[in-house]
Amino acid sequence: MSPNYIKTIARPSEELVRKLGKHGSATVHEAMGRIGAMRSSIKPLAKGMKICGPAFTVSAPPGDNVTILKAIHEAKKGDVIVVDFSRITDSGPFGELTAVECQTKGLGGFVTTGSVRDSKEIIGMGFPVFSSALSIVGTVKESVGRINHPISAGDVVVNPGDIILGDDDGIVVIPLAMGEEALAASDAREAKESAVKEKLRAGGSIFEIYGYQKVLDRQGWTEA
Amino acid sequence: MSPNYIKTIARPSEELVRKLGKHGSATVHEAMGRIGAMRSSIKPLAKGMKICGPAFTVSAPPGDNVTILKAIHEAKKGDVIVVDFSRITDSGPFGELTAVECQTKGLGGFVTTGSVRDSKEIIGMGFPVFSSALSIVGTVKESVGRINHPISAGDVVVNPGDIILGDDDGIVVIPLAMGEEALAASDAREAKESAVKEKLRAGGSIFEIYGYQKVLDRQGWTEA
Amino acid sequence: MSPNYIKTIARPSEELVRKLGKHGSATVHEAMGRIGAMRSSIKPLAKGMKICGPAFTVSAPPGDNVTILKAIHEAKKGDVIVVDFSRITDSGPFGELTAVECQTKGLGGFVTTGSVRDSKEIIGMGFPVFSSALSIVGTVKESVGRINHPISAGDVVVNPGDIILGDDDGIVVIPLAMGEEALAASDAREAKESAVKEKLRAGGSIFEIYGYQKVLDRQGWTEA
Amino acid sequence: MSPNYIKTIARPSEELVRKLGKHGSATVHEAMGRIGAMRSSIKPLAKGMKICGPAFTVSAPPGDNVTILKAIHEAKKGDVIVVDFSRITDSGPFGELTAVECQTKGLGGFVTTGSVRDSKEIIGMGFPVFSSALSIVGTVKESVGRINHPISAGDVVVNPGDIILGDDDGIVVIPLAMGEEALAASDAREAKESAVKEKLRAGGSIFEIYGYQKVLDRQGWTEA
Amino acid sequence: MSPNYIKTIARPSEELVRKLGKHGSATVHEAMGRIGAMRSSIKPLAKGMKICGPAFTVSAPPGDNVTILKAIHEAKKGDVIVVDFSRITDSGPFGELTAVECQTKGLGGFVTTGSVRDSKEIIGMGFPVFSSALSIVGTVKESVGRINHPISAGDVVVNPGDIILGDDDGIVVIPLAMGEEALAASDAREAKESAVKEKLRAGGSIFEIYGYQKVLDRQGWTEA
Amino acid sequence: MSPNYIKTIARPSEELVRKLGKHGSATVHEAMGRIGAMRSSIKPLAKGMKICGPAFTVSAPPGDNVTILKAIHEAKKGDVIVVDFSRITDSGPFGELTAVECQTKGLGGFVTTGSVRDSKEIIGMGFPVFSSALSIVGTVKESVGRINHPISAGDVVVNPGDIILGDDDGIVVIPLAMGEEALAASDAREAKESAVKEKLRAGGSIFEIYGYQKVLDRQGWTEA
Repeated sequence: MSPNYIKTIARPSEELVRKLGKHGSATVHEAMGRIGAMRSSIKPLAKGMKICGPAFTVSAPPGDNVTILKAIHEAKKGDVIVVDFSRITDSGPFGELTAVECQTKGLGGFVTTGSVRDSKEIIGMGFPVFSSALSIVGTVKESVGRINHPISAGDVVVNPGDIILGDDDGIVVIPLAMGEEALAASDAREAKESAVKEKLRAGGSIFEIYGYQKVLDRQGWTEA
Repeated sequence: MSPNYIKTIARPSEELVRKLGKHGSATVHEAMGRIGAMRSSIKPLAKGMKICGPAFTVSAPPGDNVTILKAIHEAKKGDVIVVDFSRITDSGPFGELTAVECQTKGLGGFVTTGSVRDSKEIIGMGFPVFSSALSIVGTVKESVGRINHPISAGDVVVNPGDIILGDDDGIVVIPLAMGEEALAASDAREAKESAVKEKLRAGGSIFEIYGYQKVLDRQGWTEA
Repeated sequence: MSPNYIKTIARPSEELVRKLGKHGSATVHEAMGRIGAMRSSIKPLAKGMKICGPAFTVSAPPGDNVTILKAIHEAKKGDVIVVDFSRITDSGPFGELTAVECQTKGLGGFVTTGSVRDSKEIIGMGFPVFSSALSIVGTVKESVGRINHPISAGDVVVNPGDIILGDDDGIVVIPLAMGEEALAASDAREAKESAVKEKLRAGGSIFEIYGYQKVLDRQGWTEA
Repeated sequence: MSPNYIKTIARPSEELVRKLGKHGSATVHEAMGRIGAMRSSIKPLAKGMKICGPAFTVSAPPGDNVTILKAIHEAKKGDVIVVDFSRITDSGPFGELTAVECQTKGLGGFVTTGSVRDSKEIIGMGFPVFSSALSIVGTVKESVGRINHPISAGDVVVNPGDIILGDDDGIVVIPLAMGEEALAASDAREAKESAVKEKLRAGGSIFEIYGYQKVLDRQGWTEA
Repeated sequence: MSPNYIKTIARPSEELVRKLGKHGSATVHEAMGRIGAMRSSIKPLAKGMKICGPAFTVSAPPGDNVTILKAIHEAKKGDVIVVDFSRITDSGPFGELTAVECQTKGLGGFVTTGSVRDSKEIIGMGFPVFSSALSIVGTVKESVGRINHPISAGDVVVNPGDIILGDDDGIVVIPLAMGEEALAASDAREAKESAVKEKLRAGGSIFEIYGYQKVLDRQGWTEA
Repeated sequence: MSPNYIKTIARPSEELVRKLGKHGSATVHEAMGRIGAMRSSIKPLAKGMKICGPAFTVSAPPGDNVTILKAIHEAKKGDVIVVDFSRITDSGPFGELTAVECQTKGLGGFVTTGSVRDSKEIIGMGFPVFSSALSIVGTVKESVGRINHPISAGDVVVNPGDIILGDDDGIVVIPLAMGEEALAASDAREAKESAVKEKLRAGGSIFEIYGYQKVLDRQGWTEA
């Protein structure tokens, strides 16, 4: 049997994280070939929250947060805690106290398929938290889960060390091995989009710039 | 077979649009006899966004946005693009680039049964967008849909040229032929509500002003 | 048969309401032994709205708001109207007019399992309203419901006079008979959490402070 | 503080239960004045299951079924266990073993806002079970709930001893004090509907039999 | 203003209805170019129910069924009543009595975006009914809707006289003007699929028969 | 970059599959320590369908089924195709033709997070299919996905070769490396439950057999 907690994980370089963090989640998702998008119901607690860092993954038993507390205790500066809280969205295993600990330690953020509470206090602190909902329903501390195993979160497989990039639009998971490639492709896409934006501001049209009439014509498009 | 794109549509006068746009969506919905309310899950990207203009309708195949790009290319100043993206809410066929094109052209807004992305940038631009969700999931450009056919959007039939009125409370669709009538009824309703509001601020009660005790008594209301 | 409207109800003291109102909903929920949390989809119209007061309960027939208007007419200063609108979330029986009446009378707030409209105006007024959604769909005034009977709202039984405490995280219902006890337990919990917060800011860890390694060890936790 | 388990509850007579059980849930709901209908997502495990008996109510902590086991141990022949499992529908606290115990004891049925498992075995046994979903996710046995307190289940208040009547259409809760009245009204309604059915089979029309053209005319109905 | 009830509508020939009725809903949907599919949550009351006939459309106010009763009274043999009950799925405006009337008159079926009740009796009668859910919640008879106007049902525009084809997989709406064309395309598709099925039973593969490796190769497919 | 299709995967022995297949999904889930349960909305097309075999995993782009056809072409006898169709439940990429191919090849079953069509025909054939919904909405064949990569399906990570066990209650994913262990634990659990069942049929009580009064007493349980 594999251990509950896998202590050693690979992580991306700080520089890669910093550079990827300048891109939007939608840009990187597109640039990677449209993979890695978590379900859009996992949202930031407040507009404007941005998250970017290596995943420190947690599988928590339904309604139980003791493994989450262990993970926060063990994670390194910059890590993003990513919790598979299964399908329990009406229970809040993360609140002000845990956010204070995370922020004091310099963690990169907290992402959960479940809920959180003390939203006002957390937003006031400015610590980036992404969740499915808010809930005041309490948790217990009786059963154990797993730390740094591959998890399923928001319909995406997350491996420890994968780069978690989130903003108002949602979260994209960048596999660690694809990090540099994703960055290069995102830079290229961004440059291309900037050029297009200029043309649009000058009165251009995406439909014309990309020549999409051809797509329509191929399908026998008719007008009248 | 009818053509994919119907180029000529009737539109309301600018004056009618301007006057209806001063009313709230709830007022016009009530004034028209409680019809035309889209499902409430189609919401503005940010509180305070207001939309009012003739519908330029699009039926897009699931996950494909090439017909949407064509529609943006063809729509006139003031038009509101209304997209039936079927039941696909986890795909974002509209983002910053398309919003820049729409705003440069002076379109009146964008409404979709699906999702959008680049929410921060779009909100920053102030272009009014109403959608079911945010999603970074990309689209393809392979299949064609239809432009300016009657569509079903948010459980309401929308004909091209119908007036789309949306605010924080949601969207109401005003059939083109009912426009003047809807305006007159809304004006009347607004005037009446202003008078009632004055009475309420002076300590009055809606229940008494409208004499609703009669409704209760008709049903044998009892108190103890 | 019991009467439609029960006129006399017990209420908590103003002092108890005032003191409970200083606590967050999550704190009181935990302090009471994790009971009384309404479903988290019932949310404030705007972040920052706080509600605390005795419940004035209403059972309204689907899509009909005449009983709600009667209740607003009858409620006392400080009361929180709590409406069981059954499962109808796409109908808005409460808007600007009703909010003006509530605010003029000094009511403590309005909570509904259904929807409301005129959200912009109500937020502008600052009157605290909690609902499942926004909807412009109108209501009728034909059937009667009940006032001050026990109701089910958000999966919680609410008796008239129970204390309704709501904030950004959601709503907790405090049974009237448990009020003083809930306050004492909340005060104690708050004091304890403040002490823990200090330790966390000094670099401590919840996991260590509470000694949760024991929980893990009991279950045969392994690391590698 | 009230005790966890209230041992003594009032129950309806066996004769009343037997007679009410001959009616459909929709009939009794209508006859009682359209109250007491649980949300329609709480359904029988298999078409044809019928349930009728006094409620033995349980509030179970999320994901924990020890209180449910206690309730099954304590309930009397004919009782229907009704469980408020809060909003946790992805956890199955009831399966073949518990069903065998219930059936051996002659309990009247099992209703839960949560899920159950071993559906094939339970259906094979013919023991009537109503739930929101099926789920194999396990439960723990660590926290205590309450037995025979008023609960909220499926958006309805259920008091111990209330009569639970369920069939393919759903569940209606008949307050104990209204039992006789509900029966008489249901009998009357049934008789009336039988007469109407005869007329319909002879080619009659509900619209004409009840004279509903008057309702339309009152509202200014037009035809063309 | 248009009248509430439009008495004269075009209908497809009986032969066209009979022939289309031999096809499955999925076949016709594909053959028509992938349009007209209602949302899949509108399902037959029991597996095996088949519906095919001209739409007799109804817009009913939320929770009110008097217009539905009028429509049943007015519809012709073979017609399929299609009801836009807006977003109200927890109310059952159709039950045994209405089904008896429909069946006696020889109507072709009943489709609603809302709910129905008396499911056991209706299934026993064999009258085909498609709905979103079952619900015992009653309706009122106070407000009027519209008959034979274009409606939005299940995210599809339905015009009176359009052909409604439904089976276990769901419902497809065939615009009246496309009826013959849809039939021809469906026949062709069926014939083609029969041939493919033979090849598959002989050990063939869809992937090879249609040569889809080319699609993969175009996108740079790799294997290892 | 990893290849789209990983051709060589490890598989469990036929004997292990056969033996695990005799257990229910709930039993194995519990025996493994409560992991691996897919979300309960992924259900068999018809009651009684049983699935057990090694996963042949597919990631399909939204609304595109060409990769699924490739996978069916490549899978081995006994394999269970498991498709991550992202969040698109209103599109049916699997129907009668594909089912005929799967059955002819002797595949073990088909599981998708999306929808299927031709349900009647597939049920008639007896080929086991598990899906989130039925839908007639068609798919395209333009974009490529991946085969035999780890996927997220129903909130569980599925690796190629993991054992997929499904029945009426839902699906459990048994990691390949845990197969033997899961079997032994399931056998043990089954034996134990059989013994308990005997005691229950003789009038015993789960609550007493397992001595759960101790749990209640630990928490200060009170009765009155």
